[in-house]
Amino acid sequence: MHHAIWKPRRPVYLCDGATVVGHEEADGPLGACFDRHDPKDDTFGQPTWEKAEGEMLRQAAELLLARNGLGPEDVEALLAGDLLNQCTASGYGLLPFDIPYFGLYGACSTAAEGLILAALLADFTGGRAICAVSSHFCSAERQFRFPVEYGGQRTPTSQWTVTGAAAFLVSAAREDGMRRGRAVRIAEMLPGITSDRGVADANNMGAAMAPAALDTVLRYFSLSGRKPESFDMLLTGDLGSEGSSLLCEMARAEGLDISGVHRDCGLMIYDRERSDKHAGGSGCGCSAVVAAGHILPEMRAGRLADVLLVGTGALLSPQAVQQGRSIPGVAHLIRITAKEGD
Amino acid sequence: MHHAIWKPRRPVYLCDGATVVGHEEADGPLGACFDRHDPKDDTFGQPTWEKAEGEMLRQAAELLLARNGLGPEDVEALLAGDLLNQCTASGYGLLPFDIPYFGLYGACSTAAEGLILAALLADFTGGRAICAVSSHFCSAERQFRFPVEYGGQRTPTSQWTVTGAAAFLVSAAREDGMRRGRAVRIAEMLPGITSDRGVADANNMGAAMAPAALDTVLRYFSLSGRKPESFDMLLTGDLGSEGSSLLCEMARAEGLDISGVHRDCGLMIYDRERSDKHAGGSGCGCSAVVAAGHILPEMRAGRLADVLLVGTGALLSPQAVQQGRSIPGVAHLIRITAKEGD
Repeated sequence: MHHAIWKPRRPVYLCDGATVVGHEEADGPLGACFDRHDPKDDTFGQPTWEKAEGEMLRQAAELLLARNGLGPEDVEALLAGDLLNQCTASGYGLLPFDIPYFGLYGACSTAAEGLILAALLADFTGGRAICAVSSHFCSAERQFRFPVEYGGQRTPTSQWTVTGAAAFLVSAAREDGMRRGRAVRIAEMLPGITSDRGVADANNMGAAMAPAALDTVLRYFSLSGRKPESFDMLLTGDLGSEGSSLLCEMARAEGLDISGVHRDCGLMIYDRERSDKHAGGSGCGCSAVVAAGHILPEMRAGRLADVLLVGTGALLSPQAVQQGRSIPGVAHLIRITAKEGD
Repeated sequence: MHHAIWKPRRPVYLCDGATVVGHEEADGPLGACFDRHDPKDDTFGQPTWEKAEGEMLRQAAELLLARNGLGPEDVEALLAGDLLNQCTASGYGLLPFDIPYFGLYGACSTAAEGLILAALLADFTGGRAICAVSSHFCSAERQFRFPVEYGGQRTPTSQWTVTGAAAFLVSAAREDGMRRGRAVRIAEMLPGITSDRGVADANNMGAAMAPAALDTVLRYFSLSGRKPESFDMLLTGDLGSEGSSLLCEMARAEGLDISGVHRDCGLMIYDRERSDKHAGGSGCGCSAVVAAGHILPEMRAGRLADVLLVGTGALLSPQAVQQGRSIPGVAHLIRITAKEGD
């Protein structure tokens, strides 16, 4: 295990996160945290689900720039990705912004992957970078499983792709003009290593991602020498109920008890009983809107001080699954802190 | 135009590039430059085209590590991408390497995008990063256009997706143990801004990418104050014959004459007369194998000293085109130099 934890050479701030979500997410327990939602049908006024997703992402980026008083020329780089083939929500949705563009494909881990790279770019340039990601239930279902109109039955382990987009502002300056509260930094980063333990069920993403999350979490605690209890939260992206129990159980078998601090964005975003969301939320948008809309404001307000965000991704491909392949997972970790010091 | 050219804070070397190609590429004018090829049928011993592409990419990465005497623990990050939905060639093909993984989607610009990020990571860590990309004619045709077995007619403006994979070693040290010759650095980087000028013909990628290439090239010469003639080559990735004439013509209209130094990887890799390749080569693999197999050795040998590589990408999506959308393009520039100084 030679791969070190990366620390920015100068303070790098997670300044703001703008969120736009669908009506199911706005109805959920975190509904009040999100900046904007489509009150009607999640089309965002567009004729196709793919265009709807791009429009949702565009609105998130536009909102972020507007409320921070920034123009495209003030941002050094835009790192973006989504779940659609050829990442079209990002490629098309972010066309209006004349900012140097880096397309990412990290499946549901894209927010964490993009935040790592945005932090490195803010560190390198001394300026600002935006990480913007999205997912949409209807575009994802039709691409990865069945069109929503088909009305297929869902298995108990299946997760619900979050309709949501977030745009994060990462900067080498505090940029605190607009928002009061504590300064929040990206203090550490540990990128994930892909792993494949043979899970081939496209309706059980949590199980496919849990081993990758375990690998990253074990490496982090081993390299840092810290203990889980020194954090307010170890927040995984979208393991859901299946993947979350697997992660905690496997970590325990390795002598690491994370059960006291572990939370999962996929288990926070919906009221699963009330809205029949099976194993919980998933998708690029899941960890992104929970981190941007809920965690960051909680940290600014002083209710959370030190959080590990582990963005989990299942590199699922319908074609690969049809060809009999199992599903690789990856998990990128960032430590977000409002504490002084390292 | 506030977006600056990025220069690494310490020397960052482009140390080596390993290449694996198909039989058409091995038969072309640069055939002798490539490290390895499938002499038979481009399946690389695999039962599907997608697996073949992943295996080709795996071989390139393995070859790169082996001949530089490196193990996965010696490399800080692996940046990879390809043209397949969910980037499965990279996601699956590179599973054997336990190196922190960043998935990219930049279409045919992925090599240049990955080299920019690899250079930043080498600069940041003081260590090594690998950028690995691939494309395969048969997997790309079936995904983006028609299965090869269908035998569809090709339009005169259509390009031929290169079957090829390259893995680049980027490092903060010279790593010259294996290969003699001049040290080659990544001295400058200018990431591209996406643009869409309304080209909606999936068989004319060159026209879709030329405006993005123009934007990056104009910005580079304006920001750097340099002239085209101070470079040995301004090498675009895969504009082909259509896109190349468009780029030179549009640049001339802007008062910039690049015709003396402009070359295009897509026009170098095949003998278009002999092998009926229409507008030339394209795909992630095109600029990657030409840069790794031909340009880098020429620079080491002292026959080229200062080259601008402009990786061009068309963010084409069959679904988006079916929905009546045009094709955004992007072009990332890196300056590769064997000269001393900046």
